Amino acid sequence: MDVKKRMREYADEINAAMDRYLPEAAGPQKSVIEAMRYSALAGSKRIRPMLMLEFARICGADCEAVMPVACAEEMIHTYSLIHDDLPCMDNDDMRRGKPSCHVKFGEATALLAGDALLSLAFETALCDNIHAIKPVNLINAVQLLAEASGYSGMVGGQIMDLESEGRKTNIDTLESMHRKKTGAMIVAAAKMGCILADAPKAKVDAAGVFAANIGLAFQIVDDCLDVAGSSVSLGKPVGSDAENNKSTYVTFYGLEKSKDLAKQLTSEAVKSLSVFDDREFLSGLAGFLCSRDR
Amino acid sequence: MDVKKRMREYADEINAAMDRYLPEAAGPQKSVIEAMRYSALAGSKRIRPMLMLEFARICGADCEAVMPVACAEEMIHTYSLIHDDLPCMDNDDMRRGKPSCHVKFGEATALLAGDALLSLAFETALCDNIHAIKPVNLINAVQLLAEASGYSGMVGGQIMDLESEGRKTNIDTLESMHRKKTGAMIVAAAKMGCILADAPKAKVDAAGVFAANIGLAFQIVDDCLDVAGSSVSLGKPVGSDAENNKSTYVTFYGLEKSKDLAKQLTSEAVKSLSVFDDREFLSGLAGFLCSRDR
Repeated sequence: MDVKKRMREYADEINAAMDRYLPEAAGPQKSVIEAMRYSALAGSKRIRPMLMLEFARICGADCEAVMPVACAEEMIHTYSLIHDDLPCMDNDDMRRGKPSCHVKFGEATALLAGDALLSLAFETALCDNIHAIKPVNLINAVQLLAEASGYSGMVGGQIMDLESEGRKTNIDTLESMHRKKTGAMIVAAAKMGCILADAPKAKVDAAGVFAANIGLAFQIVDDCLDVAGSSVSLGKPVGSDAENNKSTYVTFYGLEKSKDLAKQLTSEAVKSLSVFDDREFLSGLAGFLCSRDR
Repeated sequence: MDVKKRMREYADEINAAMDRYLPEAAGPQKSVIEAMRYSALAGSKRIRPMLMLEFARICGADCEAVMPVACAEEMIHTYSLIHDDLPCMDNDDMRRGKPSCHVKFGEATALLAGDALLSLAFETALCDNIHAIKPVNLINAVQLLAEASGYSGMVGGQIMDLESEGRKTNIDTLESMHRKKTGAMIVAAAKMGCILADAPKAKVDAAGVFAANIGLAFQIVDDCLDVAGSSVSLGKPVGSDAENNKSTYVTFYGLEKSKDLAKQLTSEAVKSLSVFDDREFLSGLAGFLCSRDR
């Protein structure tokens, strides 16, 4: 299977759906809608919604019915990046090679665009797909999405990240931060795909194990690329972690041991797929994410 | 009926439930949870969840089953106040007689506390009440909540408010801004109460008309109190609108005509209750909100 080709096809489908679910930039709220569209349609790899759609597919669901929920997941990811870039947070001027939302639209509009994307995520997830999905499964999946994005998940990881700045941290705290800040939403995406497809608990759990492992591997690869990648392929300066005196997997374990750890997590992830029959794309995706150079 | 006494009873029940649904301030996310609790448990009148519970009650629902959704509505109201007070928005240092969330906890924590409350709202609304409420009704009600809080509702009104600063506006734009910024969530609360109780469309619509009218009347009374109220009972300086050169109902119509308009809207609201049998509390509440002095 050509994994990269299938990834591009998924990303194209998701991009088209995102465009449909985002409102048109018109009317008295035009400015905030423009800011929402600017960030939500910027070149993301769409890994999270892709995972949800693929798990739903291999568990027998109709991908079209799952698409609104997959877009909801991506809207929440987008909102978190907008708020993360704000001056009171990471104060990042650039995102995906373009000016950040607040640089382009101003802080107040960016704040509100993030807020509106979070609401729109739940509006979209709970909309017009209740005929193809069991209502109770939709409720459980969207509740998981809310939980993963909140204080015990993504936002919880963000506050841990903020509070660790300039402090000595240990590897357990670093791992726990990553598992919340980025891992929780990745795990939720995978599990939600299974839940929406009415899959048995064993599959939901296996999807969660797969996603937790590739999520952490992804973060470790990020840390490795920051010291060993090329700034051309990354689209951002290398060495920024060291410059910011940031604790990373590489500062704890060194580059080689970190790469080994990412490979080991990826192999654990692939093993957990054994309960699924059709696991070719997901295995390939895990391998691709581990060996990527940007 | 002693309307004030019933309001206090409702507020007490809602406060106790809010305390239960908010997480305990412990663990690595302690600071953000403290900020969430600080703002969500500050002395609000709890008008929005009260409306939801009362409409649910008079349509025959079990109030306990509706409580998580009522608290979700109030969590969203709280998050909007936290973000509204931030320096890049209204830059308000005080809220309900106490330092604003960002003054007390810092900007980054306040931003994240708002974000986390919005996620927690949906987590709470979709949680453990699906046995007493029809799943499809829960989905429709929570979808309405998401819509009312987003770009076409509350956030839409906030962006209109921001963009009207320092500009000449007209009465239609002012009304449209209020109907979105505060009206949408009040209307949603009333309709959701009926939807969760499985009430027929005529009742859902009537609840919406009631809430739209009392919502706008509430805003007009606010404008009147800003010029004619006492700073002691309001807990904030009077005349701040005029000082900020803000367009209000009073600057358009004058004080007397504005008061008449609020009374007229309240009377329209009460009329719309005719489809409900047990309307004593809601009529009383509408009258109370119109004649309040703070």
